[in-house]
Amino acid sequence: MSLTNFNSEQEIRVGYIEEVIKKYLPNAEGHQEIIFKAMNYSILAGGKRLRPMLMLETYKLFDGKDITCIEPFMAAIEMIHTYSLVHDDLPAMDNDEFRRGRKTTHVVFGEAFGILAGDALLNYAFETALTATTKMGDKELKNAVKALEILSKKAGVYGMIGGQVIDIIGVKAIDSTDIKQVSGNIDKINVDINDDIDKLALDRLNSIYKLKTSALIEASMMIGAIMAGASETEILVIEQMASNIGLAFQIQDDILDVTSTTEVLGKTVLSDERNEKVTYVTIMGIEHAKNQVNNLSQKGLGGFEQLNRKNDFLNELIIKLITREK
Amino acid sequence: MSLTNFNSEQEIRVGYIEEVIKKYLPNAEGHQEIIFKAMNYSILAGGKRLRPMLMLETYKLFDGKDITCIEPFMAAIEMIHTYSLVHDDLPAMDNDEFRRGRKTTHVVFGEAFGILAGDALLNYAFETALTATTKMGDKELKNAVKALEILSKKAGVYGMIGGQVIDIIGVKAIDSTDIKQVSGNIDKINVDINDDIDKLALDRLNSIYKLKTSALIEASMMIGAIMAGASETEILVIEQMASNIGLAFQIQDDILDVTSTTEVLGKTVLSDERNEKVTYVTIMGIEHAKNQVNNLSQKGLGGFEQLNRKNDFLNELIIKLITREK
Repeated sequence: MSLTNFNSEQEIRVGYIEEVIKKYLPNAEGHQEIIFKAMNYSILAGGKRLRPMLMLETYKLFDGKDITCIEPFMAAIEMIHTYSLVHDDLPAMDNDEFRRGRKTTHVVFGEAFGILAGDALLNYAFETALTATTKMGDKELKNAVKALEILSKKAGVYGMIGGQVIDIIGVKAIDSTDIKQVSGNIDKINVDINDDIDKLALDRLNSIYKLKTSALIEASMMIGAIMAGASETEILVIEQMASNIGLAFQIQDDILDVTSTTEVLGKTVLSDERNEKVTYVTIMGIEHAKNQVNNLSQKGLGGFEQLNRKNDFLNELIIKLITREK
Repeated sequence: MSLTNFNSEQEIRVGYIEEVIKKYLPNAEGHQEIIFKAMNYSILAGGKRLRPMLMLETYKLFDGKDITCIEPFMAAIEMIHTYSLVHDDLPAMDNDEFRRGRKTTHVVFGEAFGILAGDALLNYAFETALTATTKMGDKELKNAVKALEILSKKAGVYGMIGGQVIDIIGVKAIDSTDIKQVSGNIDKINVDINDDIDKLALDRLNSIYKLKTSALIEASMMIGAIMAGASETEILVIEQMASNIGLAFQIQDDILDVTSTTEVLGKTVLSDERNEKVTYVTIMGIEHAKNQVNNLSQKGLGGFEQLNRKNDFLNELIIKLITREK
């Protein structure tokens, strides 16, 4: 597939995904109208729509035919991704006023509606995914329930939320006096890992990346496979592929923060260094980090051979994600 | 059923529900340990456990036999109720530092973990409810999916979250200049209803109460009925019962704020008046409000006859809820 073809193919798909997302957004009616506006504002901010795209393409990889049963899950995964950004941007979290050149949700609608819009998007993701089950036969229903299990698990404390937690612990020191105020069943929380930064920092960083980024990418690709009727073994291969791809994607982010220009990246470079953030580059240096991206992406792409299946667009999309310069 | 019997029966049930909730809480392991502690802290703060109790008793009303398929939903509904309290207490929302005599979650764990613990509980509610589906036959699976649909809908923008939204609009004025900053698809939001306070205020108040309080009570009782295999018609009767009960419960709250003593209520009386809150009492006076409670509770209890079913404990529980003095 040539790059020009890929780019126009990608554009078509993004357009289609935008339509899917709009189709499944709630109606702006009733007294609670403002929440619909806040939800719409958050999710219609654009973006790569990477997760629904990976889901759809994995669905096609396994010859999925009934697009109407995957669409609600495509909308749902983007709602979950969006809610996590809305809450991440809150003043008590990363305190970001802009995202993709627009004011963040809480800046426009106020902090209370920033919190509620995030809650609403998370809840609505499950409401939306559950609409996929309407009129399903027994076998399809079993698959949909399995997909819902993956969605909830990968988005939760053992997945994405877990990653956000470690991210916050890493970024902000926890005031242990606060913790001590809790009587009874709350033990002292051990967050001091500065003694042996190299090994522990890498361990923690891998945990963050695996949970915060890979988990939703795993969910996206696994749900695509599950809803197309893939076998247990095939789903495991997909999970591993997605895990490697997610990790490579994140390490590439670390590298770009050092090597790219502000112009190409569209955001300030060397921001990690200024924030004294621990990254793959600060831990192992840029060359080792590049090697890691290479290894992980080879492993990830190797999944196609293991499955003896191909989807040229998906293959290209993964390569582009990992080798991207912005 | 005598009051003494009822009270000891209720105590036994609360003890059992506490065990169910603990059984389904996540494990405190891994780097993200603090989120498990925050979730545990929030949900193990005690309380009436009203929603899981109504669910279990409605399940019994319809002769439900397999307790293991209703337990995950009991834990899930309490997680959703708890997350809504954790987020309601946040500084940007009601800014409460104490709940049930304990410091609120964000006071103990910091605001970021207050937000994340709420997110985690909402997400984990679906994770937990989905564990009910393990090893289910086709018919049971269909019921579980129907129950999940009710759970997600009643907790979301058309349910509980919708109620929170109206509550905030009612309590805090929205700065329309904030809204105007949004370009494109966000219209001006009309929140000025002071012109005709009586009719509109009652309409708005009913919307808040129906959504914020009744919705989760409806979900609790409907899920109990669904999982026990109740018919569509029976589920509709239960929904209407729960709707009336929830509304009566809330109006009784308004009355108690005026009539009770601080000692009995355990919180400051006349707090609504001081906060210039619109309540049933401020809109229609105390006598009319009492009549409403009476009418609604009669309607609610009438459901038992309609269904030609009885559960003495449930009957007593509903009467106690509505006629309570604290």
